[in-house]
Parts: sequence; structure tokens; C-alpha cells
Amino acid sequence: MQRYFVPKGMWNEFTIKITGDDVHHMKRVMRFKAGDCIICNHPDGQAAICRITFLDNGVVYADIKEWLKQDAELPVEVAIAQGLPKGDKLDLIFQKGTELGANTFIPFQASRSVVRWDEKKQEKKLNRLVKIIKEASEQSHRNKLPNVQYSKSLKELIDFSDSYDMKLFAYEEEAKTSNYQSFGENLRKLKPRQRILICIGPEGGFSEDETIALKASGFQAVRLGPRILRTETAALYALASISYHFEELRCE
Amino acid sequence: MQRYFVPKGMWNEFTIKITGDDVHHMKRVMRFKAGDCIICNHPDGQAAICRITFLDNGVVYADIKEWLKQDAELPVEVAIAQGLPKGDKLDLIFQKGTELGANTFIPFQASRSVVRWDEKKQEKKLNRLVKIIKEASEQSHRNKLPNVQYSKSLKELIDFSDSYDMKLFAYEEEAKTSNYQSFGENLRKLKPRQRILICIGPEGGFSEDETIALKASGFQAVRLGPRILRTETAALYALASISYHFEELRCE
Repeated sequence: MQRYFVPKGMWNEFTIKITGDDVHHMKRVMRFKAGDCIICNHPDGQAAICRITFLDNGVVYADIKEWLKQDAELPVEVAIAQGLPKGDKLDLIFQKGTELGANTFIPFQASRSVVRWDEKKQEKKLNRLVKIIKEASEQSHRNKLPNVQYSKSLKELIDFSDSYDMKLFAYEEEAKTSNYQSFGENLRKLKPRQRILICIGPEGGFSEDETIALKASGFQAVRLGPRILRTETAALYALASISYHFEELRCE
Repeated sequence: MQRYFVPKGMWNEFTIKITGDDVHHMKRVMRFKAGDCIICNHPDGQAAICRITFLDNGVVYADIKEWLKQDAELPVEVAIAQGLPKGDKLDLIFQKGTELGANTFIPFQASRSVVRWDEKKQEKKLNRLVKIIKEASEQSHRNKLPNVQYSKSLKELIDFSDSYDMKLFAYEEEAKTSNYQSFGENLRKLKPRQRILICIGPEGGFSEDETIALKASGFQAVRLGPRILRTETAALYALASISYHFEELRCE
């Protein structure tokens, strides 16, 4: 059943109201009619089956039929801090990262990021990324929309990183040594409902200064397998592994 | 150090010869000169540091300096059978799948594949995919190039699937039930050096007939986490999880 994320103010006790782009999607793409059912997600993470009672070009009304008990959220909260990569790689990371269960995305301006986001570009890019994660959340049956939080430097990112229970950074050099810190050893220490922040560099990796700053602020260097991954693959490896560890293997 | 995969016939006891596109890459992109060192991969999986002794526009000669002991190959052989998806999604699957350690890719014409590969298209597409995995193998420091093997139907794929020790298929319906077959339970049964085949449907998933045929031929339905993944994300989830299980967690 098609899913839509409906903002808080649109929910009444027994009915909901939908406006904006979703109305176009419901009418033109899905060709829904009154009587059809959809799943609507409340921002608090709950979801309900709703029956459409009225559609026109600007608004849809639906009755709440049944609250669902499904939960498709990871048992740990994962934040991916991603050094701004080239081209449209961020789109891929946000789309796939949402499917794989990320809770928060923190794009940040790393010292080796080739692109620079000025204020105008930042607004445009973030709007686009929010749209991508909304669509990916609906498609992958997420209960919650991931958050997006831009950070203009690694320093700013480090400054608010203390609220996390575990802080890691993907470090290519770890993949080349035999005495490496395994990602698995770290995940074994993580408990359900804890918060983990994983920091990934842009194409050129972290600068020496950044590596020193990360380590000094309690970030552990980890390898993500023995092969050298492209920057956009690292986040997906980390998220898939976390899902596998907690949702499929359940290996304590 | 930059890596190149050098075909078998180009290796002598102490020297190697490189021709074709790699020569262009070495001269024009990397701007190598005589005396520079590169890593050359032998098709049998071994790799050696080689020093360039001669470059011109059509050929490069190098001396073999030292054989390396690194191994960046997964301890199990993973084949990804992918129902032909839309657009350029196969490029993404092959590139990322190579980084993540796939041994074999088997694109196949599934009954719900929207694209159709006639013979001409097949040749063109496969050439492009072989080029993508060669580049990705070099970039990710693989020791072996993955194989590519096209299958014109699921039936053909099933016919040669008996050589695998474990056969799985990603089944969306498994993600929706509470009594699902976990991917982790399957991987726990897999031993190093065994061969696993993971079959993934195109955008519309497997048809009912295909699901019946897969089950009848010993393929186990698995879920890949509780969220609904796009077809191109499923292979990446499976490979990242296998790498995590055998290379990072080493959970028996």
C-alpha cells in the first residue's frame, strides 16, 4: 500500500488532511479515488491505514481506519556525517541511506571537499535532499523521516558530537593494516536505543589535521572491510552492516 | 599505489608488458614515467609491485619487484544474479558490488524486467559492464576481477545453479511477515570457500511462477532487513552484510 508522511498539524482524532505535492502524486501518479486506502505516517513514528473520502486538485481527506504495529526502524539511532562529495553522490547516499535505516544525515564541508556550498546552494541542495529522503522513506516503508542537519565544518560537527554514545570514522588506512580496529568489535559494544555517529570523508579522505581532531574528540577509526570503498559506498556499507547486525543476525 | 589487471599472456618470469586502455591511463591520466611503481594483478589473484622500465603510446614494460601477500577477496564466493533493472541501475550494482567483493554477476532477463536485451544490446551492455568492474576492481584494490555471465531467463539461471552450496532469493514478502527467514541464520551455515548465489528480482519483483520455480529448485526466500529496498540496493545490502559477517564481525 502506498505510504505518505503527513505533518503533525494535519491529523485529527479520526481524520487526516493532505495537501501539497502528495495530492498531485495521489491524483495523477497513483490515480486514487475516494474509497481507496493508503498508509499515512505520523511524525512520531506511528502509521495508520486510511481510507480516502475526498480528493480534488489541492486537498485530500481520509478517515483513519486502523493504527499499525509494524516498526521498520533500526533499534539503534544512526547518524551519517558525510564530507561533501562531488557531483550527485549525495543524492545516492541520502536515497540509499534512507532505505537502509539512517536516522540522521549530516552533510559537512570537509577540508578536501571539492564542492563548496554557499548559502544559496546550501538551501537549494538541502531542499532537494529532504525531498529525496521523503520519497525513499515512503518507498521503503519507514516509520520515521530521517533528519538532515548541515554542518559547515568538521569542527562544528565535532562540537555537537558529544550527545552520541559511539563515534566512529571510516579511515582508509585502517583497511590496509593487519592490526585494524574491526567495525564488528565496535558494534558489539552498542546497545539498542543507543546513538552512533559515523563520519565519512569526501573523495580525498580526511586531512591529517581532521584525523587528529577526530581522534582527539573520541572518534574511533574503523575499517569497513578490507577493500577500499568509494566515499558514497562507505555509508551504505556501514548502514547495511548495522541492519544486518541488529535486525538479521542478532548476534550479541 | 595505482593498480592494473594484466592478462595472463603478458607476464614473464621477471617482467610484464601492458597494452590497450591502461597505457593511455598510465601516460595521460597518471603521467607515469620510467622508474615509477605500480601494482599489477595477475588473473590468478596474486599481485606484485612493478617498476616501469619503458613507456610509449602503445606499450608499457615493467619489472616485477615484489610479490604481495595482501588478500582483499571475500572468504566466500558470492554470485549476484540480478533481474535486469531499468535505466543505468546495473552500472551502479556492478560498480558498488565489485567494491563490496562480489565474485560473479549474472544479469538475467526476469519476467518482470521492463528492458529487453537483444543480441546487439547484450554485447554492448556487457562490454560496458566489464569495463566498469575492471575500474572498480583496481580502485578498491581487489585481487581478482569478478566474472560476468548473462542469462537469458530465470530458467537458464536455475539450470546451472546446482554448483552453488547455498542458493537464496530476496523476497519482499519475507520483509513483511514476522515469521521470516533471517539472512543471518543462512550466513551462519555458510563456511569459508563455499559458494553462495543470491538472486534478486527487477523493480516489480519476481512473478508468481518465478517464485514457485525458485523454491522448487532449492532457493531459500530471505529478507534483507525489515525495510523495503529498491532492487539496486538489495545486492549492496547482501554483499555488505556478507563482508561484515566474515571480515569484520567474524561471528561463527
